Amino acid sequence: MTIKLEIRNQHRCFDGTQSYYQHHSEVIGLPMRFSVYAPPQAGKQRLPVLFFLAGLTCTEETFMIKAGAQRYAAELGLVLVSMDTSPRNTGIPGEGDDWEIGAGAGFYLDATQAPWSQYFRMESYLTQELYRIILEQFPVNPEQVGITGHSMGGHGALTLALRHPELYRSVSAFAPIAAPASCPWGEKAFSLYLGESPEDWHQHDATALIAAGHHLPTTPLIDQGMADPFLAKQLHPDYLVAACEQAGQPITLRRHADYDHSYFFISTFIEDHLRHHHTVLTLDQMDG
Amino acid sequence: MTIKLEIRNQHRCFDGTQSYYQHHSEVIGLPMRFSVYAPPQAGKQRLPVLFFLAGLTCTEETFMIKAGAQRYAAELGLVLVSMDTSPRNTGIPGEGDDWEIGAGAGFYLDATQAPWSQYFRMESYLTQELYRIILEQFPVNPEQVGITGHSMGGHGALTLALRHPELYRSVSAFAPIAAPASCPWGEKAFSLYLGESPEDWHQHDATALIAAGHHLPTTPLIDQGMADPFLAKQLHPDYLVAACEQAGQPITLRRHADYDHSYFFISTFIEDHLRHHHTVLTLDQMDG
Repeated sequence: MTIKLEIRNQHRCFDGTQSYYQHHSEVIGLPMRFSVYAPPQAGKQRLPVLFFLAGLTCTEETFMIKAGAQRYAAELGLVLVSMDTSPRNTGIPGEGDDWEIGAGAGFYLDATQAPWSQYFRMESYLTQELYRIILEQFPVNPEQVGITGHSMGGHGALTLALRHPELYRSVSAFAPIAAPASCPWGEKAFSLYLGESPEDWHQHDATALIAAGHHLPTTPLIDQGMADPFLAKQLHPDYLVAACEQAGQPITLRRHADYDHSYFFISTFIEDHLRHHHTVLTLDQMDG
Repeated sequence: MTIKLEIRNQHRCFDGTQSYYQHHSEVIGLPMRFSVYAPPQAGKQRLPVLFFLAGLTCTEETFMIKAGAQRYAAELGLVLVSMDTSPRNTGIPGEGDDWEIGAGAGFYLDATQAPWSQYFRMESYLTQELYRIILEQFPVNPEQVGITGHSMGGHGALTLALRHPELYRSVSAFAPIAAPASCPWGEKAFSLYLGESPEDWHQHDATALIAAGHHLPTTPLIDQGMADPFLAKQLHPDYLVAACEQAGQPITLRRHADYDHSYFFISTFIEDHLRHHHTVLTLDQMDG
């Protein structure tokens, strides 16, 4: 059955359409919101699509407002999708009291621990329900799906691509939490969402998944600002690079002097990421 | 004496620097905030500078976050300046209760009516204090200053350029309130800030100023979305065009089907505006 979407807002942008949607999520059991930029080419053909997973505290609006991505999506003919970073208004006590857990901090996994396990099922939401909505209700090519994200969403992009290689053919990340089992943000979230077993944590840690033999569909493009205040304590891209080298997984990590963790950093390099995905996704198509 | 600036935040962006400042304003008597994007060329030479005046409810951050302008400023070598849309925390009763008046609604004029007249002096702030700060403390060419803005800020850009032609050599606007003396937003603000005399209102109304013989320094570029929900009741670009035709003032008004009043509209056409200003400002220089 087709899931019914409510259009919350629509705006013309670079001759395409920026839309905000809400729908009842069967997977989560609550309303969920997401955003789509459909470039001008969308009326004429099925296009490659890129999912952008945002970071802690963000919503489905953040990327669309701050990254300046529509200009390049309109040029390339790429559909952009972003989504809220967690369920909202779950009624779980304290869900909005701490920006590192609960509302705005879904970490793109299915929680197994009460009380979070009832609603916090972002992995199933993204890989099943939202994925199906986008493929069924938007003019996208199901063979040309990429995934990217920022910070917590960079973690999400890497881990979902590693755990569901059949769903995503290109992957990139901005300042990802690259080894969440080994940093305070991840330790806190994994402990509350997944419990205390290291094996469970490693199933949602990009570095551990690579070390365990998972592979990414193509060489990921990762950008990291060297003035990022979270770099030393939270992000650990070097752990990921080391695991990739050990496992023979090609990876492109670009270190940018003076850039920080903000969307001013993302906006500077979003063009490169959109071109990366478009190239990989359309090359795949030609090979197929 | 050099006015002391406090740097609130700085971010690397397109190899330039996005900065947020606060300072004590002598003109207003309270702290004021503004933002500057300095492109990568800023270390090497004095550059043209463009002031962007934002609309109702906005702050010094809005344009820098939402318009996607830095990419083009970095390419062209253009300094961007934006500023808060009113004094804040004045202690005037009800200053934050109505988004059309008071905080976030300074209308780029000096109020003459109590209680607003004590602090609401945005015209003097922009044309004297902030103008001097930018020319003295940033690497800009004093002969290459342009002004633009959106909605209330489009009104501000047009009226400040008409009232201070010696200060601004290029002008443009997005969806300006083009005849504020003839629309609800302007009638309400002018009544409270300026009193009830039509002559006083006409000194701050672009259409009336053109009709009274004022001229713009160059042909203004004005963009207007035809799906703008404020177009029919608040903006009246046709009044401005009629006054310009009558007065022999050249004007470029572009009407864009389907575009609304949002920054998705601005982001689509900001490149054209930056190129317009850069061309006019650097041509002036070569003629000089």
